[in-house]
Amino acid sequence: MLSKNQVKFINSLKLKKNREAEGLFVAEGIKIVNELLHSGIIVKQIYSSRNYQLSIFNYHIDVVRIKESELKRISSLNSPNEVLAICEIPSHTLSPAALINKLCLVLDTIQDPGNLGTIIRIADWFGIEHIICSPETVEVYNPKVVQATMGSISRVQVHYTPLAGFLEDMNKQGSCRIYGALLDGEELYKTTLSDSGLIVIGNESKGISPELLPFITDKIRIPHFTPSGKEALSSITTAESLNAAIATSVICSEFRRRAASAS
Amino acid sequence: MLSKNQVKFINSLKLKKNREAEGLFVAEGIKIVNELLHSGIIVKQIYSSRNYQLSIFNYHIDVVRIKESELKRISSLNSPNEVLAICEIPSHTLSPAALINKLCLVLDTIQDPGNLGTIIRIADWFGIEHIICSPETVEVYNPKVVQATMGSISRVQVHYTPLAGFLEDMNKQGSCRIYGALLDGEELYKTTLSDSGLIVIGNESKGISPELLPFITDKIRIPHFTPSGKEALSSITTAESLNAAIATSVICSEFRRRAASAS
Repeated sequence: MLSKNQVKFINSLKLKKNREAEGLFVAEGIKIVNELLHSGIIVKQIYSSRNYQLSIFNYHIDVVRIKESELKRISSLNSPNEVLAICEIPSHTLSPAALINKLCLVLDTIQDPGNLGTIIRIADWFGIEHIICSPETVEVYNPKVVQATMGSISRVQVHYTPLAGFLEDMNKQGSCRIYGALLDGEELYKTTLSDSGLIVIGNESKGISPELLPFITDKIRIPHFTPSGKEALSSITTAESLNAAIATSVICSEFRRRAASAS
Repeated sequence: MLSKNQVKFINSLKLKKNREAEGLFVAEGIKIVNELLHSGIIVKQIYSSRNYQLSIFNYHIDVVRIKESELKRISSLNSPNEVLAICEIPSHTLSPAALINKLCLVLDTIQDPGNLGTIIRIADWFGIEHIICSPETVEVYNPKVVQATMGSISRVQVHYTPLAGFLEDMNKQGSCRIYGALLDGEELYKTTLSDSGLIVIGNESKGISPELLPFITDKIRIPHFTPSGKEALSSITTAESLNAAIATSVICSEFRRRAASAS
């Protein structure tokens, strides 16, 4: 049974300012909640419309049994999925020195929650532990982002910081390659790729901000193709652009393929 | 000025049965409508809340000037974007013989409209002209699919047919490779890939149907990685799966990269 105040409090976490004030976020669904329980994320409370069983490692967590009608009142989903967890927002420290020799993603104002969630899932798949976002990028604890990560949010650290200053700091750390996905870049499949470095992905419609371009050391381009498998040189008869998450996946895959084939 | 009947008719096209009965679909937004006007799709009528200008090639199309409040009443978008077009559903003939020597996608019950739209955009980017879908796959003229294609819908032919019969027909055409994305497949980066063939992508949660597995000639797997760039052999500490559209993009990119590097 949920009190009015509990319903009000949980629903208040749908807003970023309340999540930040409380240091809490909401995750929903058996799969994501199970993954969070096995991760470093601290789960504070679980609301479940079924008989949700915790493993012995999690007996200290408070599980509140509620009705399905009550779950609907606190859920962000169109079809609530049995369980809703209140979790602590972890505090990640961004240390440029710790990123040297790693492959990381830099997101320049990704605005669509589904895109950010999908990019976090891609990072997790390709073993990328850190994503550095511009302050204007959609917040990672937005319920739509949390759901789109399918649990990968527990394994990837997402940082927010002004990117020009961050890229400058990274440059000072030494020979860090900074790759940018740009239409006038070198062909992804043929250009030299290092095992580590930063991959900058631009905004869905505007691309990479002009102020960040001076920091890009390597411009890369995903070629597009004609039906005969040749590179399409004109964009008149083919797609103008790839979705930001799709571009991220193609680029991450190629970085990992190269590193794997070289080792 | 829109009549009540016009509003009713346009809104009726939000339902698949009405789209099929009328042979019409709706596309919205300047970018997509402009692309459709330059494609083989027949645009029957345009409703615009601004002074929409047609090129001399399209002077025969009826443009109805409407108010923004009227556009809101007929739009499927949260933020209607100036223009809405009523278009004829093209009739594509599926001829297995015509697919030999081409790279095509086969979708086994993709259910999310955003995923299908994104997959059509990926196909367009990588020069794939035909997508063959199971009858249970979301309908391509669903407004959410049309919008997610960003115009690529005018350049990619999407067919619906029972897949077991189709794959059997393709087998009879000769030595057509049928690739399936499966967890126990050969590593994508190392396995042999032909220039042409079918790539079967499974349902978002269930994967490829058991009844289609006997037709798969080549099982392929996208490896996932640890932070050190090595392949992750256990799935316990990494993402369990990639989104269907993301998997499609990684596989299409690798097929085109191989063909380009071989030529």
